[in-house]
Amino acid sequence: MNVAVLGTGMVGQAIASKLVSLGHPTTMGSRTPDHEGAHAWADAAGPLGSAGTFAEAASGAQLVFLAVAGQHALAVVEAAGAALEGKVLIDLTNPLDFSKGFPPRLSVLNDDSLGEQIQRAAPAAKVVKAFNTLANTLMVDPGALPEPTDTFVAGNDGEAKAKAVALIESFGHATPIDMGGIEASRGLEAWLLLWTRLYGVFGNADFNIKLVRA
Amino acid sequence: MNVAVLGTGMVGQAIASKLVSLGHPTTMGSRTPDHEGAHAWADAAGPLGSAGTFAEAASGAQLVFLAVAGQHALAVVEAAGAALEGKVLIDLTNPLDFSKGFPPRLSVLNDDSLGEQIQRAAPAAKVVKAFNTLANTLMVDPGALPEPTDTFVAGNDGEAKAKAVALIESFGHATPIDMGGIEASRGLEAWLLLWTRLYGVFGNADFNIKLVRA
Repeated sequence: MNVAVLGTGMVGQAIASKLVSLGHPTTMGSRTPDHEGAHAWADAAGPLGSAGTFAEAASGAQLVFLAVAGQHALAVVEAAGAALEGKVLIDLTNPLDFSKGFPPRLSVLNDDSLGEQIQRAAPAAKVVKAFNTLANTLMVDPGALPEPTDTFVAGNDGEAKAKAVALIESFGHATPIDMGGIEASRGLEAWLLLWTRLYGVFGNADFNIKLVRA
Repeated sequence: MNVAVLGTGMVGQAIASKLVSLGHPTTMGSRTPDHEGAHAWADAAGPLGSAGTFAEAASGAQLVFLAVAGQHALAVVEAAGAALEGKVLIDLTNPLDFSKGFPPRLSVLNDDSLGEQIQRAAPAAKVVKAFNTLANTLMVDPGALPEPTDTFVAGNDGEAKAKAVALIESFGHATPIDMGGIEASRGLEAWLLLWTRLYGVFGNADFNIKLVRA
């Protein structure tokens, strides 16, 4: 499956490299066609890796990961534009606002979420919130933890969610918990207010949530 | 240890009964001196159980649980008044706002929390946020889950937190994670935005968080 990863940071690189390792032709999308980091990644990734603008990457893909810092998410969706129409858009972002320091506050929450904003900004895309709840190292290497943990999906399109679920399972995760429609992003993003404080207490990001049920 | 439980609902009854079962003389506090539910609980609890107003309950106690619905928390703290001075006040509350239906929003979050509001309303009390992250049935019976799960404490007074930790451990829990000062309530209360959605997905409250670390 041709996949685009919008974002050249640590999350984007981790996801893109995992996709290549699983045999998916993967294009890393960035703001400019000559982004150094994106091309360096593509060169290192081998024949399955390529680089392009956000719109170029999305246009050639069947499934798109949005893997940018939260404050850039809507601008990147806008830049990808019509190339997102009809596509599964897996939204990994969180509306973290570090302007007042650490731990961050959220720039949107409670009555709205970044996931919903993204769905509204790309109404013809099938947005699936996923993987926003754990560190990128654990997204792509769940076996780094001593036992299986939980991940989540939320979105309005069942078929799109099923594709996201299959991809997450192919990364080595247990079946994610289906939280319902994209508005469940409000809960999944709010978790970051606890996650970031746990990060501060533990001193690292090497942890994830497991829900223990009776 | 003489303990007061402010609140006559399911959470208050569960905590008060557990305290009695552990041998603590326990007074259930309520708005009025003749509250039927509080007296019914005290009668059923035997010689260690008693009932009184919020202020009466708190004045005789070394440690006080605040176990009321979030929207009443500050009024109850005000009603307990000077009786809370110098006391450990274990705050179980969440600022849940069901006015727009289920799942609830939070009436305070991000830049403040109910835990902090309570500490400001009772500056001479030693507020410890605890047990706001799981169902009351699991607060008092952690063995109902198939494996140990996590609980948390947050507060500005180390000695008060140590007392809360000892009490939580005596309920059968592993040592709670110390999240730091009372401002960590922002993270612990935000968890309810995910917890309530998980409650909706699972159809019951019989689950708790376990943090799996590398």
